[in-house]
Amino acid sequence: MTMDIKDFQIPRLGRAQLDSPLDPSTAFIDDGATVAYDSDAAKLAEYVRKGKTIPAFELAGPRARIYHDPSWCKAAVLTAGGLCPGLNDVIKFLTSTLRGQYKVPIVYGIRYGYRGLNPASKLAPIVLTDENTDDIHEQGGTILGSSRGEEDTGVMVDTLMRMNINLLFCIGGDGTARCAHDIAMEAQRRGLSISVISIPKTIDNDISFIDKSFGFETAVAACSRFASGANNEAKGAYNGIGLVRVMGRDSGFIAAYATLANSYINYCLVPERKFTLEGEGPDALLPNLVERMNRKHHAVMIVAEGAGQELFDKLPEMHDASGNLIHNDIGILLRDKIREHFKKLDIEVNVKYFDTSYAVRSGPCHGADAVFCAMLAQNAVHAAMAGRTDMVIGHWGDHFTHVPIALATRERKKIDLHSQLWTSVRASTCF
Amino acid sequence: MTMDIKDFQIPRLGRAQLDSPLDPSTAFIDDGATVAYDSDAAKLAEYVRKGKTIPAFELAGPRARIYHDPSWCKAAVLTAGGLCPGLNDVIKFLTSTLRGQYKVPIVYGIRYGYRGLNPASKLAPIVLTDENTDDIHEQGGTILGSSRGEEDTGVMVDTLMRMNINLLFCIGGDGTARCAHDIAMEAQRRGLSISVISIPKTIDNDISFIDKSFGFETAVAACSRFASGANNEAKGAYNGIGLVRVMGRDSGFIAAYATLANSYINYCLVPERKFTLEGEGPDALLPNLVERMNRKHHAVMIVAEGAGQELFDKLPEMHDASGNLIHNDIGILLRDKIREHFKKLDIEVNVKYFDTSYAVRSGPCHGADAVFCAMLAQNAVHAAMAGRTDMVIGHWGDHFTHVPIALATRERKKIDLHSQLWTSVRASTCF
Amino acid sequence: MTMDIKDFQIPRLGRAQLDSPLDPSTAFIDDGATVAYDSDAAKLAEYVRKGKTIPAFELAGPRARIYHDPSWCKAAVLTAGGLCPGLNDVIKFLTSTLRGQYKVPIVYGIRYGYRGLNPASKLAPIVLTDENTDDIHEQGGTILGSSRGEEDTGVMVDTLMRMNINLLFCIGGDGTARCAHDIAMEAQRRGLSISVISIPKTIDNDISFIDKSFGFETAVAACSRFASGANNEAKGAYNGIGLVRVMGRDSGFIAAYATLANSYINYCLVPERKFTLEGEGPDALLPNLVERMNRKHHAVMIVAEGAGQELFDKLPEMHDASGNLIHNDIGILLRDKIREHFKKLDIEVNVKYFDTSYAVRSGPCHGADAVFCAMLAQNAVHAAMAGRTDMVIGHWGDHFTHVPIALATRERKKIDLHSQLWTSVRASTCF
Amino acid sequence: MTMDIKDFQIPRLGRAQLDSPLDPSTAFIDDGATVAYDSDAAKLAEYVRKGKTIPAFELAGPRARIYHDPSWCKAAVLTAGGLCPGLNDVIKFLTSTLRGQYKVPIVYGIRYGYRGLNPASKLAPIVLTDENTDDIHEQGGTILGSSRGEEDTGVMVDTLMRMNINLLFCIGGDGTARCAHDIAMEAQRRGLSISVISIPKTIDNDISFIDKSFGFETAVAACSRFASGANNEAKGAYNGIGLVRVMGRDSGFIAAYATLANSYINYCLVPERKFTLEGEGPDALLPNLVERMNRKHHAVMIVAEGAGQELFDKLPEMHDASGNLIHNDIGILLRDKIREHFKKLDIEVNVKYFDTSYAVRSGPCHGADAVFCAMLAQNAVHAAMAGRTDMVIGHWGDHFTHVPIALATRERKKIDLHSQLWTSVRASTCF
Repeated sequence: MTMDIKDFQIPRLGRAQLDSPLDPSTAFIDDGATVAYDSDAAKLAEYVRKGKTIPAFELAGPRARIYHDPSWCKAAVLTAGGLCPGLNDVIKFLTSTLRGQYKVPIVYGIRYGYRGLNPASKLAPIVLTDENTDDIHEQGGTILGSSRGEEDTGVMVDTLMRMNINLLFCIGGDGTARCAHDIAMEAQRRGLSISVISIPKTIDNDISFIDKSFGFETAVAACSRFASGANNEAKGAYNGIGLVRVMGRDSGFIAAYATLANSYINYCLVPERKFTLEGEGPDALLPNLVERMNRKHHAVMIVAEGAGQELFDKLPEMHDASGNLIHNDIGILLRDKIREHFKKLDIEVNVKYFDTSYAVRSGPCHGADAVFCAMLAQNAVHAAMAGRTDMVIGHWGDHFTHVPIALATRERKKIDLHSQLWTSVRASTCF
Repeated sequence: MTMDIKDFQIPRLGRAQLDSPLDPSTAFIDDGATVAYDSDAAKLAEYVRKGKTIPAFELAGPRARIYHDPSWCKAAVLTAGGLCPGLNDVIKFLTSTLRGQYKVPIVYGIRYGYRGLNPASKLAPIVLTDENTDDIHEQGGTILGSSRGEEDTGVMVDTLMRMNINLLFCIGGDGTARCAHDIAMEAQRRGLSISVISIPKTIDNDISFIDKSFGFETAVAACSRFASGANNEAKGAYNGIGLVRVMGRDSGFIAAYATLANSYINYCLVPERKFTLEGEGPDALLPNLVERMNRKHHAVMIVAEGAGQELFDKLPEMHDASGNLIHNDIGILLRDKIREHFKKLDIEVNVKYFDTSYAVRSGPCHGADAVFCAMLAQNAVHAAMAGRTDMVIGHWGDHFTHVPIALATRERKKIDLHSQLWTSVRASTCF
Repeated sequence: MTMDIKDFQIPRLGRAQLDSPLDPSTAFIDDGATVAYDSDAAKLAEYVRKGKTIPAFELAGPRARIYHDPSWCKAAVLTAGGLCPGLNDVIKFLTSTLRGQYKVPIVYGIRYGYRGLNPASKLAPIVLTDENTDDIHEQGGTILGSSRGEEDTGVMVDTLMRMNINLLFCIGGDGTARCAHDIAMEAQRRGLSISVISIPKTIDNDISFIDKSFGFETAVAACSRFASGANNEAKGAYNGIGLVRVMGRDSGFIAAYATLANSYINYCLVPERKFTLEGEGPDALLPNLVERMNRKHHAVMIVAEGAGQELFDKLPEMHDASGNLIHNDIGILLRDKIREHFKKLDIEVNVKYFDTSYAVRSGPCHGADAVFCAMLAQNAVHAAMAGRTDMVIGHWGDHFTHVPIALATRERKKIDLHSQLWTSVRASTCF
Repeated sequence: MTMDIKDFQIPRLGRAQLDSPLDPSTAFIDDGATVAYDSDAAKLAEYVRKGKTIPAFELAGPRARIYHDPSWCKAAVLTAGGLCPGLNDVIKFLTSTLRGQYKVPIVYGIRYGYRGLNPASKLAPIVLTDENTDDIHEQGGTILGSSRGEEDTGVMVDTLMRMNINLLFCIGGDGTARCAHDIAMEAQRRGLSISVISIPKTIDNDISFIDKSFGFETAVAACSRFASGANNEAKGAYNGIGLVRVMGRDSGFIAAYATLANSYINYCLVPERKFTLEGEGPDALLPNLVERMNRKHHAVMIVAEGAGQELFDKLPEMHDASGNLIHNDIGILLRDKIREHFKKLDIEVNVKYFDTSYAVRSGPCHGADAVFCAMLAQNAVHAAMAGRTDMVIGHWGDHFTHVPIALATRERKKIDLHSQLWTSVRASTCF
């Protein structure tokens, strides 16, 4: 992908000339600090030798001088799209950073995503406080409620104006970020000083230019219980097959990580790797499976929801309310096709099917993943207070970054079949 | 149910006249010790006053004098039917009690249930030792493999004779116990001194005359994760409904216990309680649900797999290889009918469906449930060594008992809708 | 222990002549229903033949006719003593049964045990509602706070009078129950119609006449993590010893159950079984340990806090604020004595010490244990509404029972070293 | 710290001129590929403009051409120092990569760290295979056993020579890496072509030039259970204080992360931040605590084992067998000093002390942390096969790296009190 250095530039609402209210011992970030996109020293040197600027993200973090006057601020937080571990952590830390550190007097929680910004929904916002967000990180889901689907940008900006909201935090996926971009654009057109910051939520970890998304590690860990159960079911029956469907609409990172974390998984099917059911050659799944069953009499298979979509008869494409392509259920298809194939060959087979998706995405966030949520939220607030807008908070090579929404949503991150990750998966599976 | 005192009598292979090899400090059980079926003092007194014998189970436990000479014994263990937490615990403690306490020289693990007793299967048994069973309780499933379906009784007894097996432990459900009964009968016909002991496995806790079955408590605890996730999904979407299907083919004990353990469950549907989808009155599910959604905008529903079977169009009955009636999938039916009904009423609804069965049954057993497995296995060995046969190891009012297979399999235990359990469930739900 | 039939009689405040407000479909309990203390049929028959009454507990459960008029009731709940999994479950279900089923208008939560009944503490009670108790079962501890120590009975009854409290629920151990007894006596002396019901809390499961106490099963399961870690530490070092201290002041049930649930535990030390450190014979711990270490090079030992108290130099006895004997720390003593002994013998040893107590007792309650809490609480309310007082809610042979406080606190339940439980523990350990 | 570009150079045993046996589709790493130490674009550009080389680590990964001929290889793996989640994962993946991918015929597991390389220990190595390492990642600890302490370098190299070992993997901390360096040096002196690769194990995450160490994230997650229990204990008693001691000998990363992941922690004490017990000002702990208790009546405190060492009376320094400074027990000191201080002020206080260390370090590794172990091990094998030696496998900005042992052990990584991490901790605590 060719990128221009302008791709990395973050819009600013104006000059940041107010003193930050943060404790003076805070390690404020220099406004020009960056995180280079590349890491190879030779490549980096080449940019300079050719007289080019090194492509780099703006480094996130607290600024000594800020744009918004906290005492005049009103903030709003919303969550959109499907559940993901950590949503409540992010809500909690947005609230505590806005109120506790910057002394922003009012933080609203908007109900059910963008819908709550449409007065027709009659969904009154919640006032978020330390008290009502204190324990929420211990429960999964989102206390604000979420929804898919879009609302009219003009209507939403009207609401922001009427409520005097000048800091808007939108936690959600691609669609949510695009919507945030539209709001930021419309606010700019109207001459409003609203910082719109998107906090990227993708349990699939599939956002380009962001090396890690919150909830992903918790999801991988949660899949292990199911993988272990599938292994027990596979070994507990003659010619047993444990088949586990995991999330991963367009990218198979959860499936790949779960495979490496649970080395008894024998087949890892992801959207990036094409395969056929029947036929010959290394990409024909069922013949490979027959061969393994005859040899080992059990198998464990993990399949990302977006894998093998090309196997379905060509139906007209369907999209959900967020505009995502609705996938046919590959788990059910595989379960049925495996049974059919073995029956045809008159070989006994016992397929046990596990659908993990809601069970994985609806739990709370744990450990280092929760810390990641906390820091993501804090940096989102720092960015907003410094007057940034139309951006997402990212992470690159161990640093939090500012990423323009346009760049973050340009394309999805996918597993590179020539990467070390996939090589490792290949080495520990048989397909 | 009317019962005769003969219903409680356990067949014995002969007089137990050998000294037990157990440590002399062991609290041996007197051979006449019993556990009364009833507990109400007035009712108990009435039996005596009327000159009747108090109906009672034989008390389980080690006997000071045993029937089988351990040094001449060969034991075999098999697991049949679906997985259940604790199978490996039982296998482990059967092995350690037989070998460690009674010094039985050989314990075979039969592969894949009764199938492994049919030489046509070509499934050689495993020799079970302390070494190869040491850690198995930490993993779910069964190291022996399991299967459904029956084998010819004569063929199986031929195998037992050929292998000189005189102690057979069959871990499984109703079907398994009936098969064990057939083997015991056939062995008797042939004049063989084989103790056939069935260890009741039913994750549904639905065996009559047995107040608690292994794996049940672990299953209830495992359902909580899903119930909690369902609650988060329900609250995370506008008009969200979390729908959780749990095990419970004929009896809804898991659903009822999970409801009491997770008090945010609003609907508990079990086979014992009939309901209709539409219509009027207190048993019409969908109108009740509509009313709740309009009021609360979220609901959590747990449904046992055997609930609402009468809702399906009358199809010809189908049975699986174990002879169990195959149920239509009530979870899927409810999911679809709810969506349809709300669509018809033009009310938004977001149903998130969780199918827990394999995930719950394939895990390891925990805590007191594991202790229960250990003691069940030890008592099974004590019974076999004392020359009992054609029986299952049961539990009644805090004591382990001997229960004739015919009694244990006579009918399934079901939730009494007038019991305190169901009253409690009613009190904490809205249907 | 000889018991008189009067030992089982529960005081009643007066005739229950009001109709219960519970749903008429409720399976009301007949007021004369009982649960026999014995279970052996022969022993039961003998009572009758000798013209004696069968000793039996009153059966717990809802009565069709009650004593207290719910609309005039004020209830209070308190928790005393150390934490135990399930306290919040009991508080929640007391509240929901009182308010939801009996429509008692006010339920107070008394802060920090009996202290909150002393106005000098200036601790205002909380009003408990469905809203503020809805989620509390998901967290450990007690939302009311707890304390040890006694308050003046007269002062406390003054408070109950001033607050018009006529239903008092005291969740706690022996000391708490004795205090509840004193309050009941004082109320009787003053002619007050106050039902005082004690809900037995003992993580050690050591109450006589009660076969199971809440939190015990959760505690056993929680110990497994530590036992597993101790096993890893023991095997991870040359001559490694994993030493785990668990709760069990006077009775070693947790240690015994944890041993059976985690069969790699090699030594189970409980208060009931005396042992010496040095010396000879089967009760000398250190020589046995040396022998094992020389043979196996690792060992796992679990020790109840009350074990081996006789090993300490005779110090003057000390008691804590609840009047419990303060034990010397046997875990630390063993750790040090083992190190010393092996050093003396010039054998390398690596002792890793785990103290589990607070970590085990402070977590939430799970699964069937949570259901047990719910039913215990419901039955406590039924008993109070029916006009019972001066009693604890017990459990015997699968039934909930009413047990007079004097009987319940007469002596502690201990492990019978000739029972099947201890025989099983012996069989799976080496000491 | 000033660094020279030579600090980053990895010794090579010779020219890698054999074709790698890995699947040709593998994404081989170019031998000159690097990972820049710095990430700020301006700083990177400045190096080039000044004519300097950009400081950078060698990038880890499989090479198309390797140095060792696999069919002639013998590998050995050892674990040294304290337990850490993931040791068995690393052992497993070293084995599977060596045997499965490179077809190295023999992989030895050396028992109990370097001790197993001293023939005087009479500890025979284990032959590691796919079979005996298949499930080991599901258990904590190390199947090889570990030990502290050093052995004579010459003796160990004699053993390597006698056993024909040319690939040595040493999993351990600083001391282990230094010892590996000595072995590499001695091997070089003797002209032996032995690749010595150290895999950094530090649950404290305190190795400089390595941004993440295995087991750390699992440890942080495991601390949450204890923090939650401490919170329950603190709130469950009047003036309750939950005090949790965690690992962190010289660096407080676990304490800091656990604080951010569990936001009810009010005090986070780490070695990097000095404090006094009494006195005045912002660094006086006890007065701050008194003030909080008077206001809130409960507090949760987490303390790294190495915090507050300056509070102990100056005793002669002591070191353990690995040469680590033995710390006085700050947890016990705090517990006692807090009690003393409040007693002096005549304020009731209830301190509940949790020591987490063994319980945290002895469990298995989960999720993404397990994937990290897998990739660390694979890269260690790639490095060895490519002829690298005297290095550790590191991780920097999302890439695996080669780090010279001398650089990795130069100094410990510590929390920068001016970093965003510490600022975040400060913001969520009160001290």
